[in-house]
Amino acid sequence: MLGSLLQAVRQTHPLIHCITNYVTINDCANILLAAGASPIMADAPEEAAAVTARSQGLTLNLGTLHAERIPAMLASGRQANASGIPAVLDPVGAGVSAFRAGAARQLLEAVQFAVIRGNLSEIRALADAGSHACGVDAGDSLTPQTLDACLELAGQLSRRTGAVVAVTGETDLVTDGETAYCIHNGHPMMRSVTGTGCQLSCLTAAFVAASPGQPLQAAAAAVCAMGLCGETAYARLSPADGNAAYRDKILDAVYRLTPAQLEEGARYELR
Amino acid sequence: MLGSLLQAVRQTHPLIHCITNYVTINDCANILLAAGASPIMADAPEEAAAVTARSQGLTLNLGTLHAERIPAMLASGRQANASGIPAVLDPVGAGVSAFRAGAARQLLEAVQFAVIRGNLSEIRALADAGSHACGVDAGDSLTPQTLDACLELAGQLSRRTGAVVAVTGETDLVTDGETAYCIHNGHPMMRSVTGTGCQLSCLTAAFVAASPGQPLQAAAAAVCAMGLCGETAYARLSPADGNAAYRDKILDAVYRLTPAQLEEGARYELR
Amino acid sequence: MLGSLLQAVRQTHPLIHCITNYVTINDCANILLAAGASPIMADAPEEAAAVTARSQGLTLNLGTLHAERIPAMLASGRQANASGIPAVLDPVGAGVSAFRAGAARQLLEAVQFAVIRGNLSEIRALADAGSHACGVDAGDSLTPQTLDACLELAGQLSRRTGAVVAVTGETDLVTDGETAYCIHNGHPMMRSVTGTGCQLSCLTAAFVAASPGQPLQAAAAAVCAMGLCGETAYARLSPADGNAAYRDKILDAVYRLTPAQLEEGARYELR
Repeated sequence: MLGSLLQAVRQTHPLIHCITNYVTINDCANILLAAGASPIMADAPEEAAAVTARSQGLTLNLGTLHAERIPAMLASGRQANASGIPAVLDPVGAGVSAFRAGAARQLLEAVQFAVIRGNLSEIRALADAGSHACGVDAGDSLTPQTLDACLELAGQLSRRTGAVVAVTGETDLVTDGETAYCIHNGHPMMRSVTGTGCQLSCLTAAFVAASPGQPLQAAAAAVCAMGLCGETAYARLSPADGNAAYRDKILDAVYRLTPAQLEEGARYELR
Repeated sequence: MLGSLLQAVRQTHPLIHCITNYVTINDCANILLAAGASPIMADAPEEAAAVTARSQGLTLNLGTLHAERIPAMLASGRQANASGIPAVLDPVGAGVSAFRAGAARQLLEAVQFAVIRGNLSEIRALADAGSHACGVDAGDSLTPQTLDACLELAGQLSRRTGAVVAVTGETDLVTDGETAYCIHNGHPMMRSVTGTGCQLSCLTAAFVAASPGQPLQAAAAAVCAMGLCGETAYARLSPADGNAAYRDKILDAVYRLTPAQLEEGARYELR
Repeated sequence: MLGSLLQAVRQTHPLIHCITNYVTINDCANILLAAGASPIMADAPEEAAAVTARSQGLTLNLGTLHAERIPAMLASGRQANASGIPAVLDPVGAGVSAFRAGAARQLLEAVQFAVIRGNLSEIRALADAGSHACGVDAGDSLTPQTLDACLELAGQLSRRTGAVVAVTGETDLVTDGETAYCIHNGHPMMRSVTGTGCQLSCLTAAFVAASPGQPLQAAAAAVCAMGLCGETAYARLSPADGNAAYRDKILDAVYRLTPAQLEEGARYELR
């Protein structure tokens, strides 16, 4: 089933509008091209909504956030809702500053997201911001040991926002508040490459855009694909290669990934 | 003849001021270094003209346009004209929003460009914006089939603006409104790498800056060089390589390109 | 001794806050990860100081400077001083425009830097800006021939600012105004890769942050490490490789560099 979701991306070439940070913006564009989608980056308030209106999906990423990018994100998010195309939120560093937490809150209030994807501390920052509940303690990272607590946290955020929530870490979780994919693809060295999370959020938008009505499965397929490509790329490293070679080989693995390979290589269980 | 135009870049090391988008800005800097030129990126209105005044060429690129970058572009474009150095316009996404189309129009009114380089839809957006003529229908992309209509469109824009116009696609055109180079270098996989067009615009500025008084030939040489490097790089790909390896190998091919290889590998006819 | 300074980075994983240009920001993040440090990029005035307060080191880089980034830099620099964490200044293009020179002056007045790192023209711009003395003529680049004059210039700037001053070129100098490391690592092809200087400034912040109280030795170790990795990476190039392959192989060399290799490969003398 997951293979057909990649096939849909390669066949429909969705145009994905990304309002994202400047650290990893080039890799975000190239991973979309690698997957068969098309990227368009535009973050000026003057044109953000117009660009979204031409697109099939939207990613909003809070990295290197600037004040003037917030109205652009709000306008694009609302346009995505009006157009009926999926919007993905990547709350990069939402727990790092009140500025980013406030922007995340504004966006969650104004926009119906199809998917929210972050690491555990980012997802917890969103959950706390909304509920003011502090009882949830899922630890600092998503591991097999913290899985149950994370599932609870992600499920609550999903039910509250109506978005599929994807939490990535040593294990990955993707849930719509009822069903959860626990995904075991990936490699620890991916943490040594800046922006693999940002790239995954863009990839998720492409998968969700290409398979309307299946955001849970499509987000899970994107997470499996990224992790699987991290494994494939790691296997191609020579002893002298480091994180720069790895960055490129992950993108190359996405470029070469076939639906059959994704189908066979995805390792997950449903909860 | 084209080989000597590359030789001029490698011998004179022109400093090229780029006001460009943040998606491909790193690749733009590296392709200039690969060709033997020097890049300087500066897009604040406070210093744009001063930086241009120290440079031998200028590239203005409309990708990820922000409002405050427009006065910087206008100031740098005027300084380039005052200094007698060539300015290249890359109207990225000029047809995507009224914001970018308006900026393109402002720039075309205020600045005499040496070269305008874009894909067919971008060039058509400029042509339409100026003439309000809608009769030209060159199709959606520049192919052998649409070549004649594209030549007509590019020639009109060239005569109206006084700039050499370069349209890139499956076939590439470079014309000054009288003579046209139809260029057959390149590889379709170049479309899978973000920013090959942006890189070409910077490369064009370097070629034109290094050979004053020959903008048509210099722009054609840059287009041939980029396409030829796309061919050379493609030949170096292994079966597991994808668009990230290809991106790097294109830059590497520019770094290694010799005047003799360009002379021999350029495939074009004059019209 | 230098090896243990790398070891400290790999063991303490310092979080380095970078306010830097958009040309090389991705490479800056990846070199920090390669060294075992963690990057965080944030340049909005609304959150700059808050991000610095969570970090162990700070780098301020004047490339692609924008007016609104200056208050962010000032706030972060002051926070670094208040927190007792090291701040590194990279005065990219300080001699290029009055805008950048003015920002450099503002920063030097408001912030106590642990290290200032630049090429000779940038360091001279800072020295001139402060002293209004024009007698120093160290030539255009730091070579064995201009070494004595450069030492004098760097020493003066160091004594005036209280910062360790690192001047990089064909030879590199690192001085605290009393002792100087003259460093002979590196390869000329590093000049063909955009941003090796920016990367070195970030790496320097990581080394200095990981070994409190030893800014001179730590900065020298970072400069040796970068140069040594430039040598290692050059040795790995194939005949068809160019500056893109070189860029990645430098980062990969940092990722693989061991304390023992740094200890053995560092080539310097004390003056």
